[in-house]
Amino acid sequence: MVKVLVSGYGVIGQRLADGVELQGDMELVGVVDAAPTLTVQALRDRGMPYQLYAAFEGAREPLEDAGIPVSGTMAEILPEVDIVLDAAPGGIGAQNKELYKKHGKKAVFQGGEKDEIADVFFHGYANYEKGLNQDFLKLTSCNTTGLIRTIDCLDRGVGVERVAITIVRRVADPGDYHRGIVNALQVDKAPNHQAVDLMTVMPHVDATGLLVHTPITHGHFISVLATPKKDLSVEDAKALFEAHDRIRLVSIDQGFLGNASIFKYARDLGRPRGDIYEVPVWEDTFVKSGRDIMFGMHIPQESVTIPESIDAIRAAMGMETDRLTAVGQTNEYLGLPYWR
Amino acid sequence: MVKVLVSGYGVIGQRLADGVELQGDMELVGVVDAAPTLTVQALRDRGMPYQLYAAFEGAREPLEDAGIPVSGTMAEILPEVDIVLDAAPGGIGAQNKELYKKHGKKAVFQGGEKDEIADVFFHGYANYEKGLNQDFLKLTSCNTTGLIRTIDCLDRGVGVERVAITIVRRVADPGDYHRGIVNALQVDKAPNHQAVDLMTVMPHVDATGLLVHTPITHGHFISVLATPKKDLSVEDAKALFEAHDRIRLVSIDQGFLGNASIFKYARDLGRPRGDIYEVPVWEDTFVKSGRDIMFGMHIPQESVTIPESIDAIRAAMGMETDRLTAVGQTNEYLGLPYWR
Amino acid sequence: MVKVLVSGYGVIGQRLADGVELQGDMELVGVVDAAPTLTVQALRDRGMPYQLYAAFEGAREPLEDAGIPVSGTMAEILPEVDIVLDAAPGGIGAQNKELYKKHGKKAVFQGGEKDEIADVFFHGYANYEKGLNQDFLKLTSCNTTGLIRTIDCLDRGVGVERVAITIVRRVADPGDYHRGIVNALQVDKAPNHQAVDLMTVMPHVDATGLLVHTPITHGHFISVLATPKKDLSVEDAKALFEAHDRIRLVSIDQGFLGNASIFKYARDLGRPRGDIYEVPVWEDTFVKSGRDIMFGMHIPQESVTIPESIDAIRAAMGMETDRLTAVGQTNEYLGLPYWR
Amino acid sequence: MVKVLVSGYGVIGQRLADGVELQGDMELVGVVDAAPTLTVQALRDRGMPYQLYAAFEGAREPLEDAGIPVSGTMAEILPEVDIVLDAAPGGIGAQNKELYKKHGKKAVFQGGEKDEIADVFFHGYANYEKGLNQDFLKLTSCNTTGLIRTIDCLDRGVGVERVAITIVRRVADPGDYHRGIVNALQVDKAPNHQAVDLMTVMPHVDATGLLVHTPITHGHFISVLATPKKDLSVEDAKALFEAHDRIRLVSIDQGFLGNASIFKYARDLGRPRGDIYEVPVWEDTFVKSGRDIMFGMHIPQESVTIPESIDAIRAAMGMETDRLTAVGQTNEYLGLPYWR
Repeated sequence: MVKVLVSGYGVIGQRLADGVELQGDMELVGVVDAAPTLTVQALRDRGMPYQLYAAFEGAREPLEDAGIPVSGTMAEILPEVDIVLDAAPGGIGAQNKELYKKHGKKAVFQGGEKDEIADVFFHGYANYEKGLNQDFLKLTSCNTTGLIRTIDCLDRGVGVERVAITIVRRVADPGDYHRGIVNALQVDKAPNHQAVDLMTVMPHVDATGLLVHTPITHGHFISVLATPKKDLSVEDAKALFEAHDRIRLVSIDQGFLGNASIFKYARDLGRPRGDIYEVPVWEDTFVKSGRDIMFGMHIPQESVTIPESIDAIRAAMGMETDRLTAVGQTNEYLGLPYWR
Repeated sequence: MVKVLVSGYGVIGQRLADGVELQGDMELVGVVDAAPTLTVQALRDRGMPYQLYAAFEGAREPLEDAGIPVSGTMAEILPEVDIVLDAAPGGIGAQNKELYKKHGKKAVFQGGEKDEIADVFFHGYANYEKGLNQDFLKLTSCNTTGLIRTIDCLDRGVGVERVAITIVRRVADPGDYHRGIVNALQVDKAPNHQAVDLMTVMPHVDATGLLVHTPITHGHFISVLATPKKDLSVEDAKALFEAHDRIRLVSIDQGFLGNASIFKYARDLGRPRGDIYEVPVWEDTFVKSGRDIMFGMHIPQESVTIPESIDAIRAAMGMETDRLTAVGQTNEYLGLPYWR
Repeated sequence: MVKVLVSGYGVIGQRLADGVELQGDMELVGVVDAAPTLTVQALRDRGMPYQLYAAFEGAREPLEDAGIPVSGTMAEILPEVDIVLDAAPGGIGAQNKELYKKHGKKAVFQGGEKDEIADVFFHGYANYEKGLNQDFLKLTSCNTTGLIRTIDCLDRGVGVERVAITIVRRVADPGDYHRGIVNALQVDKAPNHQAVDLMTVMPHVDATGLLVHTPITHGHFISVLATPKKDLSVEDAKALFEAHDRIRLVSIDQGFLGNASIFKYARDLGRPRGDIYEVPVWEDTFVKSGRDIMFGMHIPQESVTIPESIDAIRAAMGMETDRLTAVGQTNEYLGLPYWR
Repeated sequence: MVKVLVSGYGVIGQRLADGVELQGDMELVGVVDAAPTLTVQALRDRGMPYQLYAAFEGAREPLEDAGIPVSGTMAEILPEVDIVLDAAPGGIGAQNKELYKKHGKKAVFQGGEKDEIADVFFHGYANYEKGLNQDFLKLTSCNTTGLIRTIDCLDRGVGVERVAITIVRRVADPGDYHRGIVNALQVDKAPNHQAVDLMTVMPHVDATGLLVHTPITHGHFISVLATPKKDLSVEDAKALFEAHDRIRLVSIDQGFLGNASIFKYARDLGRPRGDIYEVPVWEDTFVKSGRDIMFGMHIPQESVTIPESIDAIRAAMGMETDRLTAVGQTNEYLGLPYWR
C-alpha cells in the first residue's frame, strides 16, 4: 500500500483525497491545510473522515479555534508517507517542495505551479513512461489534461500532426467570490498556454489556439480542430473516443444541451459534488474540414485531473511500468468507464 | 409502513423520492415519469434504485427505447400505494388528481399547482393540524415554505403581526435551458404571491412584498422585515432560529459570502447533489428598525420543500396527530438538525 | 434621392433608419411598426424625428392610444417609396413581401428571413454585383456579415481556400427578457449556419464550424481559422484588415479586454446607443498554424449589418454599378473609417 | 460664468463634464486624468471637445505617447478655475484636496471618498442650504443620492419617520474587468452604508437595511419601505413622485420589465451612452403594509449623481441661495423633466 498525503484541501485537494481513497493499492494518510475554509469546515461537519494536518505549526491554532481536530503538522506526518499530492495554492507548492526534499519524499504538483518545479510535465495516457520513478511530477492543467486525452487518443489511432483550439473558459469555480466577470467575454493573448503545454507533452504535434473567458462556473468548452496523419472519418473518430475510458460521447438529443446539462446529469447521477472524471465530447459537433476534423468537448475543471494525478503516483512510485495497465488500474478503482 | 408513490421524477420528484427512502416508517413504491429526461437517464445509469412507472401507457415506449426499464404504468401501480407525492409539471397534477380520486388515493401536490387542487394549503410547522386525515394537500412553494419556517418560528416565540419581504429570486434552476435572463433584473407586480400565500397559511399575519428575478441558479434570497408582537432583540431572534431544526445560522466570517457559498459548502459536505433541507439565515444581516426586525435568508429552491412534503404524508395519513412529534420524526429520519 | 421606407422599428430597424438618414443620396420616408414597444415609445419621446406608419390598419389604434402620432399605414405610404428595408420580426417579412410585390416595390430583408424570400443572398463587399437591379435581396445575418468582411478581405488579398470557425454567441440583446441562459453554455449542432451561409455568398471557399451560446449581451466573438491560397504572414494579414474601412484592429494593451470594452469605448465615444458599424479584430489573437492563420473578432450584433443593408439599396436601385465605389459611398456617408 | 474643472475623467468624470457643459452659467475649463484609459482614448477619438490636463507632471508623457493632446497639468490650470468636481478614484481625492487647498479652490468630491474629506455631506434636494458657500462638499453615493430623492420627496410631502431598505446592487459597471461575481449573490453585513448615510443627510429619519450584490451591470434596484408621519395612499405617493423633476414613474405594462428595459429605452431615446439622470420608480411595486408604504426603484449608477453634483457647485459658489431655485436651474439646463 502506497501511503499518500494530500497537501492543500481545496477544490482539487478534496477531490484528490476522494480519488486516492478509492484506490485499492493506496492508503490516504491524511490531508493538509492551513486555514478553516468552508471546505475544511465541511470536513469537520462530515466527522473528519480524513485526518487533517496543519500546513505549518502556526496554522494549528486557527484550525482548532474553528473546532477542527488537527492530527499534527505536515512536517510531523511526512516521515510516514511515500508521496505527496500537492494541491496547495499556486506558488505554495514551490515552498512545500523544499520540505518534501528535506524528507526525501516524492511529490506530484498540480498545473498551477511553474514547470520548473518538476522533473517531468506528466499526463497518464500521453507520457506515462516519462514519469516512471521520478521524484517530482507536474500535472497538466485541467484544460490541457482533458484536451490531451482526446488528442492522444486520436494520435495513437491514426496519428495527429496539428491541433488548433478555441477555449471557451469558465472564469470562476462555483463558490468563488474573488474573481469573476459580468456580461463580458475576456480575450487572452494568443497562443493560449494550453496549446503550448500540449506541445511539451506531445512534442510531435503542432498546436496553437485562442482563449476567451466567459461568465460561467461549470466547465470549460474546447473547440478542437485536429489534422490527422491519415484520413479519419467522423465515425472512426467517434469510435476511438467511445473506446476510451476517460472520454464520453454525449448528444444534444439525449438532453445534453451544454455544460449545465453535464453538471445537472452528474448531480442527478449521485456523483459526489456532481463531479465527473470523464471529458464529454458532443457527437453533434463533429465536422470535417478537408482532412481536418473538428469537435467540441467539455472540461469539468474541478475533477478532470484526478485520474491523471493518481496515474502519476503509479508512475513516480514505480507501482506499474506499463502505461495501459497503470491507467487501467486507476480507472478500475475509480469505477471508469462509468457511463457507457 | 405507508406506501408512497412519487409522480414526476424531475427536480423536485427525485428529491422527494430520496427523502421518502430515508423515512423508517414509509416505503417508496416507485417513481413515475413520462419521458427519458436527463434525470430519468441518470436513474437508469445509477442502476434503477427505484422502480419507474410510465405516467400513461403511451409513455412506456419512449422510455424503453431509451433503455430505461419500466415496471408498469402509474394506473397499474396505484392500487398498491397509500399516497402519492405529486411533483408533475404545473397543471399535470390537476389531471393526475382525477386518477388518484378514481383509485381512492390521497395525494400531496407541490406549489406549482393551483390552490383549488387541494383541501388545504399545507406547511408542516405552521398548520400541521389542518392537514390531518385530509385527502388532498398542497404544499407552499419553495420561497413560501422557507419563509414560513422563520415567521412561524418567531410567531410561536413572541407573536408576529406583520411581514414585509423583498425576494431576490433565482430565475432558473441549474441545468435549465428553457428560461433565463442575461445581465438583467426582472421586476414583478407587487405584492408577490409568496406574501399572499403566507397569509393563507398564517391568516393572523399581515404580509406583503416585492420580488425581483436575478440571473443566478443556486437559491433565492429573502430580505425579511417582521413586526413582532412584543419586543424582540436580535439575540433572542437568533436564539429562536438556532433552536429550529430546519433553520441554520451562518455568517460571512465563517465564509458564507452568499448563495454560492451555501452551495459550495453543501457540495463539499457530500450532501447528494449539494442539496440542503435547511434554510440558512445570515447572522450578519440582523438589524432592528424600531420594533421591527430585519434579516436575510437563503432558500435552496430545489430541496427546501422536501421535509414539509414528508410532513404532509404524516398528516394526510394520520400517522401522527401531534405537530412537533410529526415534524420531529421527519427531521430525525432526514438527519436534521445536521449542521449544528 | 432614393426614397426608403424602414419596415419594423426594432433593434435593427431603428439603426437602419439612422443609417439611411446619414446618406446624402437617400431620403428616409418613414418607419413602420405595429405596436407601442419601448423603442417606439422612445421615438415618440424624441419628438418623432421620423414619420411612423402603422404596419396595418388595426395597428393604428394601439399606437395612437399610447400617444404615438401615426402618419398612415404602410399600404398608404408604399406608393411614395422606392425601396423598403424590411427589419420586421422573422417570418413577417415573408408576409410583407406580398404587399411589396403588389405595389411593385423592391425590398431588402434581414438575415432572420428564409433564403427563399430573396433573389440573392447579399453582402456589399463580397457579391455586390449579384445584387444589381434585383428586386429582393436578403442580407447575411450579423455574424455572417462581419465574418465575410474579414474573409472577403483576405480572399481579395491572397485568396482563401478554407475557413473553420468557432462562434461564441451572445444569447440575448440588451433589454431582451424573452430569452436567456444562466450560468450555462449552449452547444449547437454543427456545422453552424454562418459557415454554410458564407459558402452561399463565397462558393469558392470551404467553410464549417461550431457555435456555443454564452450568457452575455454585447457582441459575438468569432475565432477564425483561415487557409490562405498563398503564404500570409500575421503582419500582412493585419495590414489587409487595417486598410479595410469596416474592420478595425484593437489590442488588449490599448484596454480592449473583451466585448465589454468595445461597448464601453463606443458609448464613451458618443456613438448613438454605443453602436459601432465596424468589426474589431484583436491584434493579440493572430497566430499561425502551419499555413493557416487564426484570429479572433468581435461582432456588434445590433449594428453590424447596417452598412451592408445600405449597400443593398445601392445595388438593388442600380445607384452605382462599381462595387468599391458603392461601398465607399456608404462608408463616406456613415463616416467610416471612423476610428483609425 | 463659474469656471469648473473636472478631475478624473472616468465613469463619473466624463458624465460630470457633459453635465457642466450643459449649464448656461458654468464654463467647463477642462478635464484631468492620469493615463490613456479607453475613456480618455475615446475623448481623443472624438476630437478633444474638452481640454485635457495631466493629473501630475509625470502623467503627461504616457498620455502624449498615446496620441492624446495635453493642455498642461492640473497644477497649471488650477489658478484659472473657481471650483473642482473631483471624480478621481477613491482615495486620490484626498491627495488632490491638498492641492486644491494650496490654490485656495473649492471642490466637490464623489461618494467614494471618506466623509472627513468634506465640510458637508451634500444632497441638492435634501440639504442644499448646508452646502452654501462651503469649501469642500462630498456627494452622497449613487444609491444614496437616488434613495434620498424619493425619501426627501415623501418627507417634504407628509413627513417620513423611518426607512428600511433592501438594495439589490449591480456588482460591476459595464466594461469593468477588475471585479465581478458569477452565478452568485453576495451578502453584505447590515446595516448597509446607504441607510447610515441617509441618516447623516436626513438626521430626523431612522434608516436601516440589507444589501446583496448581483451579477448585473445596468443599475441597482432598491426595495424601499417607508413609514410616513401621516397616512399616505399609494395614489398620493405616486402623485408626489410624479411632480418631482428627478423621479420618473414607469410600469411593467409600458414595457419596463426591469433594469435592462430602462437601459434599452435610454439608449433608444438617444441619451448619450444610454444615460439617464432620473430615478425610475415602478408603479407596479407600490404596496401598503399597515401605515408603511413599499415601492421599488432603479438607480442608474453611472449618471444619477450628476444633477446633485451640479447643485453642489451652485451651493458652494453661492450662485443661488434658494434650494428649489438652485435645483430648478440645474434641471432646466439638463433638460429635466425630460420624460414626462
